[in-house]
This record gives sequence, C-alpha cells and structure tokens, in this order.
Amino acid sequence: MREMFLLTFPLRQKKGNFILMNGSIIRYILGYVLKIEAVLMLLPCLVALIYQEKEGLCYLMVAGGVMLVGIITTWKKPYDTVFYLKEGCVTTALSWILMSLCGCLPFWLTREIPSFTDALFETISGFTTTGATILGDVEALSYTSLFWRSFTHWVGGMGVLVFLLAVIPMSGGSNINLMRAESPGPSVGKLVPKMRHTAQILYFIYFGMTIAEIVLLLIGKMPLFDAIATGFGTAGTGGFGIKNDSMTSYSPYIQWVVTIFMILFGVNFNAFYLIVFGKIKKAFCMEEVRYYFLIIFVAIGIIFTSLLRMTGNVADSLRHAAFQVGSIITTTGFSTADFEQWSQTCKTVLVLLMFVGACAGSTGGGIKVSRFVVLFKTVIKELNSYIHPKIIKKIRIEGKPVEHEVVRAINVYFISFMILFSLSVFLVSLEGRDLITNFTAVIATLNNIGPGLEMVGPTQNFGFFSVFSKWVLMFDMLAGRLELFPLLILFHPAVWREMFIGKKRG
Amino acid sequence: MREMFLLTFPLRQKKGNFILMNGSIIRYILGYVLKIEAVLMLLPCLVALIYQEKEGLCYLMVAGGVMLVGIITTWKKPYDTVFYLKEGCVTTALSWILMSLCGCLPFWLTREIPSFTDALFETISGFTTTGATILGDVEALSYTSLFWRSFTHWVGGMGVLVFLLAVIPMSGGSNINLMRAESPGPSVGKLVPKMRHTAQILYFIYFGMTIAEIVLLLIGKMPLFDAIATGFGTAGTGGFGIKNDSMTSYSPYIQWVVTIFMILFGVNFNAFYLIVFGKIKKAFCMEEVRYYFLIIFVAIGIIFTSLLRMTGNVADSLRHAAFQVGSIITTTGFSTADFEQWSQTCKTVLVLLMFVGACAGSTGGGIKVSRFVVLFKTVIKELNSYIHPKIIKKIRIEGKPVEHEVVRAINVYFISFMILFSLSVFLVSLEGRDLITNFTAVIATLNNIGPGLEMVGPTQNFGFFSVFSKWVLMFDMLAGRLELFPLLILFHPAVWREMFIGKKRG
Repeated sequence: MREMFLLTFPLRQKKGNFILMNGSIIRYILGYVLKIEAVLMLLPCLVALIYQEKEGLCYLMVAGGVMLVGIITTWKKPYDTVFYLKEGCVTTALSWILMSLCGCLPFWLTREIPSFTDALFETISGFTTTGATILGDVEALSYTSLFWRSFTHWVGGMGVLVFLLAVIPMSGGSNINLMRAESPGPSVGKLVPKMRHTAQILYFIYFGMTIAEIVLLLIGKMPLFDAIATGFGTAGTGGFGIKNDSMTSYSPYIQWVVTIFMILFGVNFNAFYLIVFGKIKKAFCMEEVRYYFLIIFVAIGIIFTSLLRMTGNVADSLRHAAFQVGSIITTTGFSTADFEQWSQTCKTVLVLLMFVGACAGSTGGGIKVSRFVVLFKTVIKELNSYIHPKIIKKIRIEGKPVEHEVVRAINVYFISFMILFSLSVFLVSLEGRDLITNFTAVIATLNNIGPGLEMVGPTQNFGFFSVFSKWVLMFDMLAGRLELFPLLILFHPAVWREMFIGKKRG
Repeated sequence: MREMFLLTFPLRQKKGNFILMNGSIIRYILGYVLKIEAVLMLLPCLVALIYQEKEGLCYLMVAGGVMLVGIITTWKKPYDTVFYLKEGCVTTALSWILMSLCGCLPFWLTREIPSFTDALFETISGFTTTGATILGDVEALSYTSLFWRSFTHWVGGMGVLVFLLAVIPMSGGSNINLMRAESPGPSVGKLVPKMRHTAQILYFIYFGMTIAEIVLLLIGKMPLFDAIATGFGTAGTGGFGIKNDSMTSYSPYIQWVVTIFMILFGVNFNAFYLIVFGKIKKAFCMEEVRYYFLIIFVAIGIIFTSLLRMTGNVADSLRHAAFQVGSIITTTGFSTADFEQWSQTCKTVLVLLMFVGACAGSTGGGIKVSRFVVLFKTVIKELNSYIHPKIIKKIRIEGKPVEHEVVRAINVYFISFMILFSLSVFLVSLEGRDLITNFTAVIATLNNIGPGLEMVGPTQNFGFFSVFSKWVLMFDMLAGRLELFPLLILFHPAVWREMFIGKKRG
C-alpha cells in the first residue's frame, strides 16, 4: 500500500489553528524507521553467510550504525503524540530520504557502486519501486547486494510507515493522518475500524501473494534465489532484475507467472480484502479495477496485433505483449523483449500506459486509474453543464457521489504532476540528450516505472546521465512515490521555521 | 480576439431551466456568417483581377453560391433572439466548420489542391491560424489563392463572430453570450458598457496594428503583396508563408519587424486598449503580460546562448532565437531557421513553449499564459493548505481574488486539453510514424502553431499524413481554436435532440 497516496487526499486538521509543527514526534518516528531498517539489513547479512560473501560485513556494520542512531533518536519519548497532516507529510518525506541515505551505504562502502550519487540513485530507485538502474552489468554484483537491491523493492512497495502502523500502537486518531484513504470507492480507512488492523490485513495479503508467486516460480524450476528476488521485484512493482537481460532468458511459464502477478499487484488491495472476506461480487464491481483490466486488455490487443503482423508467432506475440503491458501499466519495469525495436504504434501505447499507472491502493505507481476515471468524468460533467447549466450533478464512482474536495484534490494533483514533469524534462534536457530519452527518463522515474525509450530503453541503463540529471531524476522518483506534495512541502519555508520553533512548545 | 476563449469561461443561464435550444437564431447567425464570408471572398477576386489570373472566376462563383445560401438562410427572421451559452457554443462551432467547408472550395475547384481533404486541411489551418500546410511547394500557387490562404489567417485571428458583433446590433444581453471575458484580470466585457463597442475597439486596434506592420515591412523594401500576406499571417498569429522557406530569405530588418509584431499580437489586447486610452501604467502592470515577456526573455536567453556556442555569431544567433521564440510562443509558426538542426536543449525549450501559448485575449493560441499563472498559483495554494489547513485564501491575480468557478474552469480546461492531446497522439500513432512527429504534429495543430519537429519540422509539411490522421489533426485545430468545449459539445446527443425539437417552440 502506498501510504502517501492516501495522504495526498485532503485531510483537514480537526482542532486548533496555527498549531506549530510537532517536531518531537517526527524525530521519534524517524528513529523508529531507522531501527526497522537496521533490522531489515540483517537479511542480506544472512544471505552473505549462506553464500560466504565478505560483503556481508559491510551490511552488518551499517546495520549496527543505523540501529545505534535509531536507539539514540528514540531514547526520549515525544512530548506529544498528536499528529496532523503536515507532520504526516514531513515525516513520510524525511523517512524516505533517510532510509535511502542509509540504505545506499553498503553499496558504496563495498565499492560495488563506487560513486555515492549512483549508489543513492540505485537505492532510491529500489525503495521507490522504480527499478531504474545505473548498473550496466547487474550480474557482477554479489548475491548479498543483489538481495538487498531487490528487497528494497519489497519494503518500498508496501511502505515502511504502513509497517510501522501494523507494528506499533499509536494514540487515538493520529495514525489516520499517516495512512488514510479518501480515495473514490471503498476506502482503506473503512475496511476495519482500527487503522492498525487495516495495516496488518494489508501486509498479510501482500506477504501471502509474494509467497504464492515464489512457490509458483519454484514450480517452474527457477532457482530459489532468483525466485525470491523476482518475487520481491514483482510484489513491490519494482522491476530490478538480477540478470542483465531482465526476464528475457527465463522460460515462457515463468514469464507468464510474473505477468499475472505483476497485474495482480497493480490491483487495488481493497479488492483482495473483499475477496478474502467472501465479498467476491463486490470486488468485481469495483469501477477502478474494471477500467484497469479494460485498459490492459485493449493495450494487449493493440500490441499483440502489431507484433503478430511483425513476427507471425501467436504464442510469443501474446506473451510479449501481455508481459510488457503488465510491466508498464503496473509500473514494474521488468522486460522480456526490447520494445525499443517494436513499431511506433506499440511504443506510443506503452508511453501512454506509463502515464496511467496502476490502481490506487496497490503497490504500483503512476497517476493511477482511479484518478483518470475521475478526470474523465470531470470533463463529461463540464460538457453536460454547457447543456443544462442549472443541473449540478456530482461525479459518481460506483454509484456513490464523489466529494467536491476529492475531485479538486485530484485536479490539483494532475496539474502539479504535469508541471513537475515539464520542469524535470527541461532540467534534464540541459544535458543535451534527445527529447525521447529525456521525456521517457522523466516519466519512467516520476511514475516509478524503470525503463523508458531510446537511451533509457529496456536494454539500457541510466548510468550515462550527469550527476545533476541523476539528482533531478532521484527527486522525481521520490516525488512520484510519495505522490508529490509530501516531498514538495519540504521546500516550504514554514516547515523549517516551525520545526525549530516547535520544540519549545512541549 | 479569440471569441471562444471567452466562451469557455463559465457562463450560466440567468433565467429558466431546461430551455430548449433556440435553433432558429443559430440558423440565422450561420446564414449571416456565410454572407460575410461571401463578401470576404471578393477580395481574392480583386487580386485575381490585378494579376490577371483565371482562378478568380472560381472564387467569384463560390462567393456567389455562398451568398445565395446565406441570403436564403437569413430570409426568415428568428422566432426569438434570446441566446444562451449552449446556443453560443453550437453557433460558434458550426460557423467555423461551415466557414472552412465553404472556404476550401476554391482551392479544390481550381485544382490547386486536388484532394478535398487537403484543401479542407489547408483552409481549417488558415482560419484557425495554425499555419500547418500540406503543400510541399507553396510558390506554385496562384497569387489569388496565396492571398486567400493568408487572408483566412487574418479573418480567423480576430474571429468572424466578433466581427459580426461589431457590425450587427443584437438584442439585449444576448451578445454577451457570444463574446465574454471572465478571464482573470481586466476583462473584455468591462472595457466599455456595450459589447458592440468593445468588439469595434478590438477590431480597430487589430486593423491599425496590421497596417502599421505592413507599412514597416514596405519600408524594408518588401514587395507589397508579400507585405500584405505577411501582415495577415502575423496579425492572426497564423504562419502561412508565401515562400517555400517561410521567412528565411528576407532581410534581417524584415525578420526583426515580424518578430516584434508577432510578440505584440500575442499580448492581451486589453493592454493595447489601456494604452490607447492613456492608462499606460495600468497596462504595464498586467500580470499576464509581465509573465509573458518574462517567459519570452528567458527562452530567448537559453536559445541564444546555445546558438552562440554553435555559430559564434551574436547578431544572427539573437535574431534567430528571438524570431523562433516569438513565432512559437505566439503560435504563429513562421520560421527563419530550421530549428530541427538546433541542440536538444533548444528543441526542448521550443516544445515547452508550444504548450504555453500566448496571452489570453490575444490572437494567439495555446493553453495561454494566464491559465498557467493560475495553475501555478493553484499548486502553491495547495502546498500552503498542507501547512495551514484552516486558512483558505483565494488565488489572486493583480491583487484581485479569482473566483473559485474561474479556477475550476481553468483546471477542467487543462485536464480536457491533456486528455484530447493524448487521445490524438494515440490516433495519429496508428499510422506508425515516430513519436516525436506524432507528438509535435498534435501539439502544433491543437495549439494552432504550425510546424513541429522531425517529419513536421519547419522545413517539412503535413502532406504525408494519411487521410484519417489529417481528419484527426483538423479536429484538433478546430478544437484548439475554439478552446475545446464548443467543439466537443457537438458530440453531446442532447444538442442534436434539442436542435430538432427546438423548432417547435416558436
């Protein structure tokens, strides 16, 4: 569950006005996040032990250091555990930045990625489930680092803060400001009365589906390590491959399993929740999910037709079309074919899919199908208002009216997205690469996809970009994963002013 | 003045509900538009007389036929002259379609453009002030047709309906629904109490500036015919050249004159109105105009630097940079250099400018600077609301609060624009051309610019597209010129249902 998707939906402070930032709770949660990351870093150490790799020592040292900082930071309890929207945003943004900064240290210290910018790029790409790599030769990495790289996808897919919610109890309604779905349709917040239980249920589904995929991959005779790494990459809709050719060399059976699971992880998790609790009919009535599958089928249809005309092989064309469509729309980014070589029609369809993205409430990125459904309905409503200006109908999703405030937030999100997108394309273009490379590099990072076209195509990597462009793209990855505002808010001077005055209020 | 820009701002019916479409007034106005077009077509006949070209006969015949249809249609007075928003939209859309259909007949009948689709494309491109041509060899056209082609720009730039308003008196407040500016900042509607006088003032400014440009061009020793055609193309921000190389072969002086006038015709005409009436200070305080010039200076700066590094020639670099920036941001589309050969940074800047467009209330197209100003302020307002959710401030332009309804309309406009843009790119991509060609061909037509990049670059033309793609692009040109909704509304079933029932109410 992308917690920050939930946060970008409008949340208003219930009490008080001009309440200063609660800096102490931010510090406390950040400390907790570090402790969790330190524990998670023990897993690659275990891998190092199995494969007898000396890189494990680096991971152990970093884990120790991070744990120490975490313990110190959480030593003092916060003055006050009340938590508003602005604290939610700042905490989330800072915790992702901090996690990436700590997470990249092992890559850098082991000298497997000698440049700090590159190491950070790779880690942010991992946590944000982008899957854009700066590595030309992935297979040269140690098993330990390969594991950590794929594992960041799995951690990032569901989100550390959601995990935190599932694990630690927080006061009153505060945690609703860390995770809340006012998304159209059945919302996460309404699944069960307690936020904490919702988070637990979501992690349970996530865990179960990852295991299911790994088992199915093992049945297809995939090596255990590959299966786990692929499972992590699929579940988080990340897309880091552990082979230089991504998924190309695996058997058609394995490719089909990955295709199906990619598409499943792009579905709104509420649908799985409903299925788990027996409300199967209700799950299939979810408007967003139906449009999601409609888009997938249409896109596969167009690309399949085009590939069939090119190759004449039905099975291969269908498999490649389904895999690439599933990979792009869910913003995973695995590939079984170099779609750079496909027809322009196919490429255009894929570029359009890059903008769409997966369902809200999934692990996938992008603008999200539900937002597009609302945007389309906004346009239709506008046309109707020209004919009958006096009749003001609310937009409806699944028969339920969507609040004006939600529609407004979606409009503003879309506008902010396009502005950030244009600005990034401009900044990256200063380097002088061609338009398609810049355009698709930005959309591939901003929507957390991974590969783009031309110089960042599926067989290429992001290593050639200048340090400046890499920082722009890193910013885009984080902005996309956190759904823009929580990251943008860090540039608001009031945040920093309040953060330092805030301490005194305790 | 682009009358339909004005219409896309929210207008609500004042009285009654469920009032059926007033079909008779629509018929009446359309007839009037045809009569005006017939009269306008006598001008190329005059040109034919001067140059002794037999093509003039075709123009005379078409003019006669169109006049006849116009007289028959306006024979019966309308039952009722009350006129609401929906009638305004439908009338505008239909009158532009009708004008284009009649206007293309001479091209087709003289066999100068043998294909009907091509002739219609060229005429729509003219009236919508796009300037995208399907002709490989422009110089092969007769003077008569060259004149008509450039003249459509001049007619389309200000709009026939605005002309109509200036000429014929209409009942009560009805004409405000044909032209009304609820744009941010000083609005057209407020210039003078009577709409009719406003329209007359606008045409006066338009006419005066066109004459001024032609005189300055003549001083630069440009032949009279060239000067008039160039004046028409600049004033309407059209961009049809009468030479195969557009403006490349003219002297630097002429290029500078065209540059300055292109940029002037992209300014909100309210500024000129203010200057004419002595309120010069107020004119320079217009926020939109200031941002417009800011964008122009920054863009020229970037491109100038890049060109200077490439060629080392200060004067040429500055002239080419200024000309192309002025041409693209005002959506004119003339060119003095093949920017297809420029650096990627320059091309990216130009592509971004293609989206921006000129000022609202100018003859230029595009999304408009004022819309972007509001969109930017919307994003900043959203960020502020995260920090202080209780303080709800309205967006301000020039210190005046912008009505919520206006902001909403701008948001919806932007969304509709992006959806139509993506859909068009997809439809054109079915033909299999490369992404840059499709992408820039669509933006160049939807924003009424003219040239794009790659296969539709400044030295190329649109002739190679399939008939299907040409129809898509024609739709885009009209949609862009009429600011989307008036054209889209024609697809609303209620419009046609009401149109035919509507007759009975008289």
